[in-house]
Amino acid sequence: MKFKRDLNYDKIIFMKETIIGNLIYGQSGGPTSVINSSAYGVIKEARKHKNIISKVYAMHFGLEGLLNNDLIDLDNYTLEELAKLKNTPGAAFGSNRYKLSHYSADEKDYIKIIDIFKKYNIRFFLYNGGNDSMDTIHKISEYAKKVNYELYCVGIPKTIDNDLPFIDHTAGYASAIKFIANAVSEIYLDDHSYKKGRVNIVEIMGRNAGWLTAGSLLSKLNGTAPDLIYVPEVPFDLTSFLNDVKSIYETKQHCLVCVSEGIKDENGNFIFETSELKDKFGHTQLGGVASRLAKIVEKEFNYKTRAFELSLLQRANSILPSSLDIKEAIKVGEFALKKAIKGENDKIVTLKRIGTSSKYKIKYDLIDIALVANKEKYLPLTYINSKCNYINDTFLDYALPLIQDKKDNTFNNGLLNVFKLK
Amino acid sequence: MKFKRDLNYDKIIFMKETIIGNLIYGQSGGPTSVINSSAYGVIKEARKHKNIISKVYAMHFGLEGLLNNDLIDLDNYTLEELAKLKNTPGAAFGSNRYKLSHYSADEKDYIKIIDIFKKYNIRFFLYNGGNDSMDTIHKISEYAKKVNYELYCVGIPKTIDNDLPFIDHTAGYASAIKFIANAVSEIYLDDHSYKKGRVNIVEIMGRNAGWLTAGSLLSKLNGTAPDLIYVPEVPFDLTSFLNDVKSIYETKQHCLVCVSEGIKDENGNFIFETSELKDKFGHTQLGGVASRLAKIVEKEFNYKTRAFELSLLQRANSILPSSLDIKEAIKVGEFALKKAIKGENDKIVTLKRIGTSSKYKIKYDLIDIALVANKEKYLPLTYINSKCNYINDTFLDYALPLIQDKKDNTFNNGLLNVFKLK
Repeated sequence: MKFKRDLNYDKIIFMKETIIGNLIYGQSGGPTSVINSSAYGVIKEARKHKNIISKVYAMHFGLEGLLNNDLIDLDNYTLEELAKLKNTPGAAFGSNRYKLSHYSADEKDYIKIIDIFKKYNIRFFLYNGGNDSMDTIHKISEYAKKVNYELYCVGIPKTIDNDLPFIDHTAGYASAIKFIANAVSEIYLDDHSYKKGRVNIVEIMGRNAGWLTAGSLLSKLNGTAPDLIYVPEVPFDLTSFLNDVKSIYETKQHCLVCVSEGIKDENGNFIFETSELKDKFGHTQLGGVASRLAKIVEKEFNYKTRAFELSLLQRANSILPSSLDIKEAIKVGEFALKKAIKGENDKIVTLKRIGTSSKYKIKYDLIDIALVANKEKYLPLTYINSKCNYINDTFLDYALPLIQDKKDNTFNNGLLNVFKLK
Repeated sequence: MKFKRDLNYDKIIFMKETIIGNLIYGQSGGPTSVINSSAYGVIKEARKHKNIISKVYAMHFGLEGLLNNDLIDLDNYTLEELAKLKNTPGAAFGSNRYKLSHYSADEKDYIKIIDIFKKYNIRFFLYNGGNDSMDTIHKISEYAKKVNYELYCVGIPKTIDNDLPFIDHTAGYASAIKFIANAVSEIYLDDHSYKKGRVNIVEIMGRNAGWLTAGSLLSKLNGTAPDLIYVPEVPFDLTSFLNDVKSIYETKQHCLVCVSEGIKDENGNFIFETSELKDKFGHTQLGGVASRLAKIVEKEFNYKTRAFELSLLQRANSILPSSLDIKEAIKVGEFALKKAIKGENDKIVTLKRIGTSSKYKIKYDLIDIALVANKEKYLPLTYINSKCNYINDTFLDYALPLIQDKKDNTFNNGLLNVFKLK
């Protein structure tokens, strides 16, 4: 390689004006609405460093594509075409859930990867994903070192679940909760069209972490808050739930419940698969947790109910993204690229919130990827009320800055600016 | 009343600068995302005619509220406060589904209504609803004539279902299909994040009319079209459906189906309640038609599936409204008011599309409400393909002008401006 390097990465000095190799970018895990914005950030920034990076490739369907030698040559796209990535949900270059074995157990994939990297002179590897994907980067980085292949790997965090440790919030989370909070407002207001409404139960993603479901609290700020919020961090008790629903509905003739798909009973079993619920009501409750709970409420109290699964719409939400989220996702991609070409390796980009609570500011940094790989960050218990059926207002200080946007008449603080009767 | 009138309404002349009475506005039936924009149009316009209309009231929960003497005095709201109605889903003043008997069968409600009208000096009655609600207006108008109570009633059409005859499209429809088409794009792109996707089945509102489901075809324009579209106007055949899904999924490893909640078998029975489906697979298929069909596909072919119910989000969609829809909804409200104070009665506002297909233009007019009351307008069969599993492109000429908006980078022709691989 035509560059000088010191084993101490801090002191690495690349020879100016020297092309040292190519970059590959890949997408992994469940998409977010801004994963493609990070891709845009990477590619745009890479084009500014032609002296170091000659070509930029994307893996077509992530690691799976890489192993099949299926690469996308990004030279075929103008910057104007690529700018559309900012409005594109899904993983535009294709994602995957391929699980790489450890090279000590099975070296086959690793040999193939290094062969392909050599063939395309890949020296920079940026992978965009969640905690599993970070484990993939870590393993490839370690293997490259082992076989003495010069490679700079940086992880670009993304997941709507917001469950990566050491990261204030992950790219994708803000847009997801912006959609969730506004969808909850819409459901609230539609139900309040009638004097006597229904018990509405909204199922929100998050198998283990309640960050997304907690986001529904934001709709409190335009007066359309849910009545009950249940997250997976604390046990869900069916009897208390039914009592709460009854008392709320009998008082208000409306009841809006937001519930994580991953709520569990006190033994840690997912509610959507507990046999207790099957037996209690004599037959299997099909569907997700919202439709199960809705059927139970119907049977128990004969209230009209409606179950909602926000499903993919929350993670593919490009119709109401947080522009802050898009901006930060781009920035995270740019930052990863800048650090990789400075010789950083086996690291992940972090976002740290700095400044006062009223003045939102983010500092980008790097930490060792091994600290994040395969680990989960849960919703702090201080955000959950003592009855385990709601989220505390302190969560709003955390979440509200994330969904801000340019002011217009339609939205206020990122939430529908709605008319309410006096 | 202090005004001259001729029995021939065409010649009616109100005395200038003379307050002749008050106005009541009501909302009825299922809300749309722009029903409140029509309310805004009515109230704003009424305030310009203080010489004729002294006060504006809204019924709190429609006819039900009226019968309970539950009125909202709109003098308590500034125009700035009322402007928020344009961003507010649901029926902000409260809706209802109260069914008025004919006065020949039961006069009780009518006597009460006229009493309340007299008490508040209501001379103008504007009711915002679908075909059932138009029937209500017609009856009240007829009864008022019968008892010689001077009353001017005009219907303001709204329904996401777009099923009112003599009306090119109803306020609310455009925003609903804009949401549907873009949600379908999001689902398409999320599924295409993976090389091997799922069979995704999206359930769209419309018990008898396929207008909303046909709207999913719009996503063809950004390259994210559904593979199959089923509407209630033609019979749904389960065997053909399964064959179609199989052939598409085996070829593409993706399959996106849009289906009206109201699809029926050849005997006219709703698919979501046919016992044939129950029996064929040995147990009751719970849930709506999408989740039923998904379970059948899973059982038959062992494909991974995902069922979506867009549910209330399509009719309460204020996060991605059509600005044309909002504008027209306001206009319809204004127009109704203007006509009522000109002495029109027992009429409904119509929208007629004029001009060339490339240059969209709407003419507002009135017709006798009896022509619309309790009648339904179905999707013309010319829009449905001969295999009864898709919508013809001619539908796009009809629908595309309705979802246009100011150009920005995010949307093109009202649809997400997405990046696609070459």
